[in-house]
Amino acid sequence: MSKSGPVLKLRMRLMLGNEIALGPGKADLLEGIASTGSIAAAGRKLGMSYKRAWMLVETMNRCFRKPLVRTGRGGRQGGGAELTARGHRVLDTYRRMERRAEAAIAPEMRSLHRLLSDMSDKQ
Amino acid sequence: MSKSGPVLKLRMRLMLGNEIALGPGKADLLEGIASTGSIAAAGRKLGMSYKRAWMLVETMNRCFRKPLVRTGRGGRQGGGAELTARGHRVLDTYRRMERRAEAAIAPEMRSLHRLLSDMSDKQ
Repeated sequence: MSKSGPVLKLRMRLMLGNEIALGPGKADLLEGIASTGSIAAAGRKLGMSYKRAWMLVETMNRCFRKPLVRTGRGGRQGGGAELTARGHRVLDTYRRMERRAEAAIAPEMRSLHRLLSDMSDKQ
Repeated sequence: MSKSGPVLKLRMRLMLGNEIALGPGKADLLEGIASTGSIAAAGRKLGMSYKRAWMLVETMNRCFRKPLVRTGRGGRQGGGAELTARGHRVLDTYRRMERRAEAAIAPEMRSLHRLLSDMSDKQ
């Protein structure tokens, strides 16, 4: 965690009713599943319990018309997992939204930046 | 709270070191102070304790070079409060950032929207 100056944290949550269909944790989990081929391993990388990682996957698969994650034979206990084409598309879209939102507010961010105290006053 | 379809919740937090210099709660508080002329009344409107509202104001005033909120005579116990010119400027900038970020991601939001389940399946 850098302490070297102001940072803007932007969080986007796509809500469907009371459920978070997609947010930062779920996007990271999709990314982890794509890179590890396993829900359990992806969850571990993120410091998430196996149960929680599974719950997030189930919520995503329920909130979208088509599943974002496909699990192999063995179901909950094994067999690996991967993103569907739809899963890749949703993840890419979410990351692009983050980049676009950050780019759109960069000018205002610079102007706020100048109004903030020096971190050197704070340490 | 509407349940009538997908909603994107966007949260921006401006961090200075470990402190939140500005975020949704503090922006709402600034707005409340501007409209009520009182930290206590603004906090009440937001369901915040007096102590918490004061703490948020103190954090903002400390994180920015110049105070965003000016309190009248009577200090913590009375005398009213108002935004400084700097406070108005920071609040306006933050609201503009929210609008710009939302506008920037509207096309992706529409495309995600189409991939989500119908809420009618969920109720």
